[in-house]
Amino acid sequence: MAEHAPSLSANQEEKLERLLATAAEIFAEKGYHHASIRDLSRRAGVSLSGIYYYFSSKEELLFMIQDRSLRTVLSELKRKLAGVDRPEEKLRILIHNHVGFFAQKMAAMRVLTHEYDALEGGYRDKIRDLRLEYSNLCTEILRDVRRSTGAGDVAPLNVATSALFGMMNSIHAGYQAGTVPAERLAEHLYRLFVGGFIGHRPRSASVGRGADS
Amino acid sequence: MAEHAPSLSANQEEKLERLLATAAEIFAEKGYHHASIRDLSRRAGVSLSGIYYYFSSKEELLFMIQDRSLRTVLSELKRKLAGVDRPEEKLRILIHNHVGFFAQKMAAMRVLTHEYDALEGGYRDKIRDLRLEYSNLCTEILRDVRRSTGAGDVAPLNVATSALFGMMNSIHAGYQAGTVPAERLAEHLYRLFVGGFIGHRPRSASVGRGADS
Repeated sequence: MAEHAPSLSANQEEKLERLLATAAEIFAEKGYHHASIRDLSRRAGVSLSGIYYYFSSKEELLFMIQDRSLRTVLSELKRKLAGVDRPEEKLRILIHNHVGFFAQKMAAMRVLTHEYDALEGGYRDKIRDLRLEYSNLCTEILRDVRRSTGAGDVAPLNVATSALFGMMNSIHAGYQAGTVPAERLAEHLYRLFVGGFIGHRPRSASVGRGADS
Repeated sequence: MAEHAPSLSANQEEKLERLLATAAEIFAEKGYHHASIRDLSRRAGVSLSGIYYYFSSKEELLFMIQDRSLRTVLSELKRKLAGVDRPEEKLRILIHNHVGFFAQKMAAMRVLTHEYDALEGGYRDKIRDLRLEYSNLCTEILRDVRRSTGAGDVAPLNVATSALFGMMNSIHAGYQAGTVPAERLAEHLYRLFVGGFIGHRPRSASVGRGADS
C-alpha cells in the first residue's frame, strides 16, 4: 500500500481488495501498459483522489496485485501443509490450493503470468523473490514425493516444477470453458501430474472419486 | 504477407523470415503495444520502406509471426505423423515437435502465448482457427492413446489437452535456465505427461534412454 497509508480499517481493507480485483480485471483485458488509473476510477466508481489514497502509482497497483496474490496463495498453502506428513498429500494440497485460489482470481493469474515483465526495480525484485519461494517450496515437495515413493528420475526437479506450474496455470485457458468445477479440475491435474511423476497411479485414499480403471 | 507482395524470391523469403524473427524478439521484450515498426527498422537494419514492402502494418506483423509459427509447427507435425500408427508414439512426436520447434523460437512462443489477445478482427479469427486445429489434433491423439492403452478417465480430454499445452509452453520459463537440451526436455515432458495420462510408464521401446526405475 502507499507509504502515506500505513494502516487500514477493515472497511478500507475491503475497499482496497475491491480496487485490486477491478484493476486486475482491467489489466487482464487491456494489458497493463494500455490501462490507466482513470480506467480504474471509472470502472470502480471511485474518484482519482480516492484511488491515490491507496496507491501512489499504476506501478504500485501492478505490484500490489501480484504481491497480494502470491502472498495469499503461499500463506494459505503453508497453513494447509502444517501437520501434513505424506508427500503425495502435500503435492495434492499444493495443486488444490493453487487451482482453487486462481479459479476465483483468473484476472490476477493473468496479471501474474503476463505482466511480471512490466514490473521494474525493487517491485520486480520482491515479486521475483516470492515466485522463487513458491517454486522452491514446490520443488521441495516434489523431492519428498520422489524420495518417499522411490520414483525414478522421469524429469529433473526443476523441469517437473515448471511443468507443474505450466499445467496449473493452463486453467487460464481451460477453465474459461467453465465445464469443470475448480475442485474437480484440481483433482484431474493432480492425478495427471503425480501419475507421470511417480510412474504409477497415486494411492487414492484421499481422492474423492473412486479409482477410475 | 502484404497484399502488394504476392510472391517472394528465395532471397526475399529469407529476409522476411529474419524480419519476423527480429520482430518477435522485440514484441517479446517490450510487449506488442510498446513496440514500433521503427524499433524493427533499427534492430534489423532495414529501412522503413524496406519493411513496408513485406508488411502493411504492425498488426499484420503480429499476425504473421503467429500465423507462420502455427502453420509451421502444424505442418511439421502432420509430416512426422504420416505413417505412424501407435498412439503413444504420435503423442511423443507431438511433444517433441512442439518443444523442438519452440525451443528455437522462444520469442515466437511468447508472442503466441502473450499477444493472442492483441489480435483483432479477421487476423484473430484466423489464428483462433489454427489454434483450434492444433488443439483438436492433440485431443484426437489423446483419445487414441486412451483407447489403445485402456487408460481410465484420469482427466477429461479437454482438460488433458490444455494441461499438456500448459506443460509444453512452460519451457518458456524452464528452458531459459538452459540446463537441458530441447530433445531431453521434450522426452522428460513426454514421460511426465503420458505416465499420468495412461496411469503407468509408457512402453519405452522408442525412448532414447533406458528405463529409469
